[in-house]
Amino acid sequence: MFLSKNPQLNSHGELIHLLSTEGLSREHLTHILDTAAQFVSINDREVKKVPLLRGKSVFNLFFENSTRTRTTFEIAAKRLSADVFNLDIARSSASKGESLLDTIANLSAMAADIFVVRHSESGAPYLIAQNVAPHVHVVNAGDGRHAHPTQGLLDMYTIRHYKGDFTNLRVAIVGDVLHSRVARSDIHALTTLGCPEVRVVGPKTLVPASFAQLGVQVFHELEEGIRDCDVVIMLRLQNERMSGALLPSSQEYFHSFGLTHEKLLRAKPDAIVMHPGPINRGVEIDSAVVDGAQSVILPQVTFGIAVRMAVMSIVASHDA
Amino acid sequence: MFLSKNPQLNSHGELIHLLSTEGLSREHLTHILDTAAQFVSINDREVKKVPLLRGKSVFNLFFENSTRTRTTFEIAAKRLSADVFNLDIARSSASKGESLLDTIANLSAMAADIFVVRHSESGAPYLIAQNVAPHVHVVNAGDGRHAHPTQGLLDMYTIRHYKGDFTNLRVAIVGDVLHSRVARSDIHALTTLGCPEVRVVGPKTLVPASFAQLGVQVFHELEEGIRDCDVVIMLRLQNERMSGALLPSSQEYFHSFGLTHEKLLRAKPDAIVMHPGPINRGVEIDSAVVDGAQSVILPQVTFGIAVRMAVMSIVASHDA
Amino acid sequence: MFLSKNPQLNSHGELIHLLSTEGLSREHLTHILDTAAQFVSINDREVKKVPLLRGKSVFNLFFENSTRTRTTFEIAAKRLSADVFNLDIARSSASKGESLLDTIANLSAMAADIFVVRHSESGAPYLIAQNVAPHVHVVNAGDGRHAHPTQGLLDMYTIRHYKGDFTNLRVAIVGDVLHSRVARSDIHALTTLGCPEVRVVGPKTLVPASFAQLGVQVFHELEEGIRDCDVVIMLRLQNERMSGALLPSSQEYFHSFGLTHEKLLRAKPDAIVMHPGPINRGVEIDSAVVDGAQSVILPQVTFGIAVRMAVMSIVASHDA
Repeated sequence: MFLSKNPQLNSHGELIHLLSTEGLSREHLTHILDTAAQFVSINDREVKKVPLLRGKSVFNLFFENSTRTRTTFEIAAKRLSADVFNLDIARSSASKGESLLDTIANLSAMAADIFVVRHSESGAPYLIAQNVAPHVHVVNAGDGRHAHPTQGLLDMYTIRHYKGDFTNLRVAIVGDVLHSRVARSDIHALTTLGCPEVRVVGPKTLVPASFAQLGVQVFHELEEGIRDCDVVIMLRLQNERMSGALLPSSQEYFHSFGLTHEKLLRAKPDAIVMHPGPINRGVEIDSAVVDGAQSVILPQVTFGIAVRMAVMSIVASHDA
Repeated sequence: MFLSKNPQLNSHGELIHLLSTEGLSREHLTHILDTAAQFVSINDREVKKVPLLRGKSVFNLFFENSTRTRTTFEIAAKRLSADVFNLDIARSSASKGESLLDTIANLSAMAADIFVVRHSESGAPYLIAQNVAPHVHVVNAGDGRHAHPTQGLLDMYTIRHYKGDFTNLRVAIVGDVLHSRVARSDIHALTTLGCPEVRVVGPKTLVPASFAQLGVQVFHELEEGIRDCDVVIMLRLQNERMSGALLPSSQEYFHSFGLTHEKLLRAKPDAIVMHPGPINRGVEIDSAVVDGAQSVILPQVTFGIAVRMAVMSIVASHDA
Repeated sequence: MFLSKNPQLNSHGELIHLLSTEGLSREHLTHILDTAAQFVSINDREVKKVPLLRGKSVFNLFFENSTRTRTTFEIAAKRLSADVFNLDIARSSASKGESLLDTIANLSAMAADIFVVRHSESGAPYLIAQNVAPHVHVVNAGDGRHAHPTQGLLDMYTIRHYKGDFTNLRVAIVGDVLHSRVARSDIHALTTLGCPEVRVVGPKTLVPASFAQLGVQVFHELEEGIRDCDVVIMLRLQNERMSGALLPSSQEYFHSFGLTHEKLLRAKPDAIVMHPGPINRGVEIDSAVVDGAQSVILPQVTFGIAVRMAVMSIVASHDA
């Protein structure tokens, strides 16, 4: 037992909110992954449901729209037997001039148990977690450029599933690292779980040298960056970047940083290829690699449901 | 047992629809409040669910958009174990030229049990109630300027919770009474429940003298209107009013009719302050009052779930 | 047992997808109708729910918007105790440039059981069925002009309910047959079920002579077309047709092809009148006929829920 000012933990050091992979111990992360392992098998059963959150109310508060991520949380919550409420925040009281905290206070008063929050502003889930009633748990589903912890955790689950252990791995994260909350969540989780070598790979505009401060190695050349790696995590190139000054064109980007089978030969022969989706085939990754033997992109999706079930069941089991 | 032409009641005088607080007896209102009291405790339990409406189908028909009110009904229905269907009416057959009654007839044929109806036109829920199949119950979730009976009932629940009894209370309703369906539902309920003095308070453009016909006292000055009151119900000032000719500016409105701690001193020391939400802080009410010791605005939200559970379970238990 | 390349059937000849009424045997169709008969009674019960799909995940993938049809599938799935996920496809990854098959692969990886698909392009549900993982079943909820098999089946259910048998019936399908997926699904089902005489009736622009190739009789005059018929199926006239070159005006259309009580006298005295909805009163059908004694339009809606429950429970019970 230890005391902590980490807003994700109660005074017993137990997880009550999931806001970031940063600040969580190896024990916390491992506990989530171990719990998820039990839920993976549930998703293969005839009846894909357990009563762990029966009668609980989960609110999907997506201030930034993302049908896919929202759906994964909705699936996870319903398989835990929770009642799920999808709020169309853009059309609701927020547009009537009500403040974020008044909206949150109102929903809390309806006896909410979990808020799943996506917001375009970094830090919004922290603000919410610090202001909710003690019976409410907050799960960050992506905030600005800051964090996307459930994606980070499902990436860790996938790596552990295929590689067994983190302590002798070389992992490359390739693409628009600068704007990626997924990259940040992956880097913190990998480091905490004991991965000795994390690389970030991309053009200088998207992977500035300052990333070395996070304890990662910076590469500006794809073949060099993924050489001898066990895991290659490709990031989605946002369309809005391609039209801006940061990049010349999607063809040119593909030429330099798109992952092809030929380039993938530089990684270890048994390297796995990951991607958070949705994929831009032919931009950051070649179609043949997406559908190839080393791709574990669809298993990531499957594990993602189990990881979100694990996170929600864990936070809901701890008092503030 | 008595016979009635009241469209809310069956021939035994039992509630089969909730369309308005007007026309309901003190017994009807008290029965709803007493039933709600049992549901308040359910919302504090680990498993916030009772099987009263299991296998029933509740349709949210919101012809006028209101994410928050729709959500409160969805929560209430799911905690009663009903299946809930949210129809995006604006995008549905209504836009294909189908009439309101054809839409209703179709949904009835799908074996609906409860329609929760919000509509911008006063009387729409009555029209629906008079045309549905006998197995369908209608709950008005707000129609035009006419009525918002579940808000009226949750206000009564809140008052009874804090004040115990209506027969020695002085209640002030402050703000845009003219356009408020909440005010109308409150006035009818308060009068029926035996409240001896109901006041309406606001500028002459929003509180015409003709309101006296409803048996209430009309005030055009805030300090005078809330003097020695036990309950102060603040109404939301619709933004569209502020830009019109009815009011000079939101600052000026706040100066005259915004509730501050200083002005609240005119009411009784133990007066409670209510508001149906969403709140315009600094327009009709000062932030410090919203968050102050006399505010019961968040408990109103909590009680609102229980009251809607009570209404749906009561109407569904009676045959037409 | 027989082997088949029909994509709707597994190697045992069992229904694993419902894509079209075309290519299904009389036994398949009759089995669906018989199964639906059991579900009709469930919809009259106090608890309108059976646990057949408990823990299964049904995804409504409506690439073309249709609130009503989506709702009927949602009702059917929830009454089978499935978890239902409505994906707002228009706002989701499809708009981020992801391909249809990548979207489908992702949702499959979330352990989906049934995809209910509506798409503006004919054949889209086939493409999906041929690419889903073996554990996923596809139900076509309308694709382009091609097929709307659950509507066809509910029409068959309705006819069998009122007429008992198909082998001595004369059925007329009236209106915009050219653009109607309902008409195609009805024609295939009626023919397979042994109906000896199917007629299509409408102006030459909407009912070309080439329809005779489907084994139906073509009429360009309403009174003649419905003469001595047992069943008259009126099709909805799409508004967009009326403004185009195909038709002069809705008044003129009503004059020639709108079904009135007077014209209905040409059919058999006990003929039933059907319509898939939503109805254009006064365009393809007179209000008095819609609400008249021969109309079975609302029973169609009721049977539609049961038919969709039957289809989903049948396909989900068979392995690919």
